[in-house]
This record gives sequence, structure tokens and C-alpha cells, in this order.
Amino acid sequence: MTHVEPVVIEARQRVIYGDTDQMKVVYYANYFRWFELGRLEYFKARGGDYAAVEARGFALPVASAHCDYKASARYEDVVLVRTWLAELKRASMRFEYEIRREGDGVTLCTGYTLHACVGPTGKPTRLPDELVKFL
Amino acid sequence: MTHVEPVVIEARQRVIYGDTDQMKVVYYANYFRWFELGRLEYFKARGGDYAAVEARGFALPVASAHCDYKASARYEDVVLVRTWLAELKRASMRFEYEIRREGDGVTLCTGYTLHACVGPTGKPTRLPDELVKFL
Amino acid sequence: MTHVEPVVIEARQRVIYGDTDQMKVVYYANYFRWFELGRLEYFKARGGDYAAVEARGFALPVASAHCDYKASARYEDVVLVRTWLAELKRASMRFEYEIRREGDGVTLCTGYTLHACVGPTGKPTRLPDELVKFL
Amino acid sequence: MTHVEPVVIEARQRVIYGDTDQMKVVYYANYFRWFELGRLEYFKARGGDYAAVEARGFALPVASAHCDYKASARYEDVVLVRTWLAELKRASMRFEYEIRREGDGVTLCTGYTLHACVGPTGKPTRLPDELVKFL
Repeated sequence: MTHVEPVVIEARQRVIYGDTDQMKVVYYANYFRWFELGRLEYFKARGGDYAAVEARGFALPVASAHCDYKASARYEDVVLVRTWLAELKRASMRFEYEIRREGDGVTLCTGYTLHACVGPTGKPTRLPDELVKFL
Repeated sequence: MTHVEPVVIEARQRVIYGDTDQMKVVYYANYFRWFELGRLEYFKARGGDYAAVEARGFALPVASAHCDYKASARYEDVVLVRTWLAELKRASMRFEYEIRREGDGVTLCTGYTLHACVGPTGKPTRLPDELVKFL
Repeated sequence: MTHVEPVVIEARQRVIYGDTDQMKVVYYANYFRWFELGRLEYFKARGGDYAAVEARGFALPVASAHCDYKASARYEDVVLVRTWLAELKRASMRFEYEIRREGDGVTLCTGYTLHACVGPTGKPTRLPDELVKFL
Repeated sequence: MTHVEPVVIEARQRVIYGDTDQMKVVYYANYFRWFELGRLEYFKARGGDYAAVEARGFALPVASAHCDYKASARYEDVVLVRTWLAELKRASMRFEYEIRREGDGVTLCTGYTLHACVGPTGKPTRLPDELVKFL
């Protein structure tokens, strides 16, 4: 297991009507969509090509997902998704997230996702080197 | 072109918080999810195996989608999705839909989707016989 | 704090195309939508009227949400959402969930949501009696 | 009825996993979410304050929605949503949209939404002046 000095990558997202629910705030499940946007931008920013890794038959399915909600995002807000790699093991990795409202900087939620690495045979496997090297 | 005597297939769906938006009604794009549920249940009810057709490399991507909104579905409503095949051509088909609120029977929307048939090469192609026969 | 003998309420949901992602399995965030369906059906089955409680200005926003993924739901599956109240405190409650695939009974995921009670003033408050009595 | 010289407003959106379905392309209903993003950015770019209009009790619910699909958006694409006001009547307006893939500029879809104006009483009403003036 390697402890990784976290590099925080930021992504921005406008809140649309379709993200809200009848409480006039963003529906709780949608924050997990933004966590995924954070992962995507993390890979891109670090020079990784997740699509290529996937094309070789590897995948990083979510094993666990967690979110602690602190404040509500609202229609027209721009949210700032901050993503970092908190843990990198032989066959798994853990991303952590913090989502803030742009403007007032209020923290809306924090959370994490734990990912297993699955190989072409569909079984858990070591993370491929070309993925690890840019993480 | 063959005109088909419509067989109407019904599907039911509970409206959850996640379907609503801050106007306290179902978000307009979500009705298209219910249209798709209607198609799925149509295939199943008619004895079709869409997954098998897809496994052979065929697909029925949506070429056009349309919805006219009449009244709003709300949280906890059960909606009734009524689906029928309105037109069956050599290489395309058109489904029509009507969604009603169960209970008071109010029509919430009507709409249609036009589907092209795409073959294993990714090109438009004739609808496969095993699909046509059960439609 | 009261420990509650769990009553498990079941809800069923068909998996549509729109629930899947390009890994050909249900997208991870969508399981939280099904958790919410489970809560809704729990309230209904227990005789509760969540809409009435909400109309009086109370709400039960999600404070934390968690899901452990075990196996993948796929297109056309019917999933069985099993929901129970695991903990009931003065001003919060915790629901737990297990989602199984109908047919083979495979457990797809387990998870929980922790809810705070918020009153008409927007502040944390005791759960209203008319909500507690039917839980 | 006034014919409006169209001003085209552009919005960008990254395609995430959660937008795709098992055909490995963006799910058809999600383009309507992007149409809504286009409307939101249209109002903002034109100096309008839709939230304020809504706070006064007016709303612009979607009466009809239509999309013609030309090509598929895929994971990691950035899509460019181009939005313009095609028609402005006393009590309704019609937005048109074109979504392109950034990079190769391929047109992915075109579509429109027709909106009625609803006043504080819930009835169709004239568009409020403060909305019309910035459109």
C-alpha cells in the first residue's frame, strides 16, 4: 500500500432544474454524478486515459460510495467538485471528494468512492501499470 | 409499409422525489424515461426478446422523440404508461405513448418515438424477421 | 433512543436502458434512487403520510448516504428493494436497505441513509409525533 | 407575434458515465437535460433573472419537447449546446437547440421546446414585461 500525497483536481458544474427536486435543492443521488465528474476530470488532469484502460478490458467499478451532506446546492449554483486520490492499493483505490458552492465557498458535501480493479476476465486484479503511473 | 392494428400495453411506475424538480412536478425529460419503460414492457408483453436481438448486433436507436405535456405528475403518483406500435416500416418503427395518472385517470402527456433499425455493421438495415414477427 | 424491531418493506422496480451505463450495468448513483423508492414505499406501507408531514413544514433531508455494491443489476432485471428502519432517535432516523435481483435472489447492494428532521423554521427539530407513531 | 432575430447562446457540458447507457452512447432523454442547460445559460447571457420571475409566481412550463437525433455523444465528449429563441408570442415562447460535439463539430441533435407562460394563479397568462424585455 502506498500513501499518496494528494493532488486536488477541480471541476465545475452548473446546477440545472433537472438536478433539483421538490425540496428546491439538488436531489441527494445527483451528488454522486458529480463525484464521477470529479474522477473523470482527475484522470484527464493527471494525463490518464481511462478510456484506453477500459478498451484493454480493465474497469474500476465502484465497490462503496459514501456522501455526507452539509448544505444544499440550488438551481443556478455553480458547484466546484474537488477530487483527490486518498489511497492506492494493489487492486483498489479510494477517491475523496469535497463539493463547494462557487461564490460563497460553502462546503455542500464530502464523500468518497472505493474502486476495485477488475481485469478482462471479470475478476479482481492488480491495477494496470499504465494506470498507476499517472495516478 | 404495414398499418398495424394497435395493441396497447400498460406499465405502471411510482413517482419518486428524484423524478420531481423544484416546481414540485415531474421534470420534463423524465417522461422520456417512462416512454422507454413502455417500449420495454411492450416488447416483453408481445413475447419479444429485445436483449437477444441486441445480442445479434441489431439496435433500434431513437431517431426522433416528441412529447406534448398536458398535466403534471407529482410525487407519490402512480403513472400508467400506455404504449402501442403506430407504424412499422421496412427499416423503422414508430411507437406512440399516452401517460395517465392512475386514480383520477388524467392524461399527463402524449408522445412518440421514431426508431431506425441499425445492423451489426452500424448501418441502417431491415428490421430482423424475429423482431417483426412478434411486433 | 429507541431500538425498533425492523419491519422490512419491499418494493419492485424494472431496470430500464436509462438506468444503465456503458459498462452494461446500472450506474452506481441510481441505486440511491431505489433507496428513496424504498423509503417512500416504507412510509406508505406503514400507514404514514409523508406528504402531509411535509405540508406542515417538516422535512427529513438526507444527512449521510452509503452504498456497498456486491453485484450488478442489468437491463430488464426486476430489482427488489428491501427497506427497514434501523434506528429512530429524537431528531434523526436511519434507514437500511438491501437490493436483490428478483429471480435468482442475488444481493446487489446494501446501504443506508441517515435523516435529520428539520422543522418549519429550517432548524433541526424533534421528529413530529404523527410521524413517529406510524414508524 | 414578434419575429425575433436569433441570438445564439452557447453552453458546454462534459459527458460523464452517468449520461451513457449500455449502447455506449448518451441516453436519449439526457439531451433534454442539455436543452434545459441551454435555456438557463440563454437567460443568464441575455441578462435575465429567471429565478426572480419565478419568485413572483410566474413559470414557463414546457408544453412540447422535440428532439431529432443525428449522431451519438459519447463518454468524455464535450458537447456544445447552442440555444436561441425562435418565436416569442403573447403567452408562449419557443426555443430551438442544436447540440454539437466539440472538437469535430459534428451535429449530434437538433430540437425545440415550446413554453407556455403561467401566472401566479396557475393559469396561462401574458409573458411578464420584465421577462420579455431582455429576451
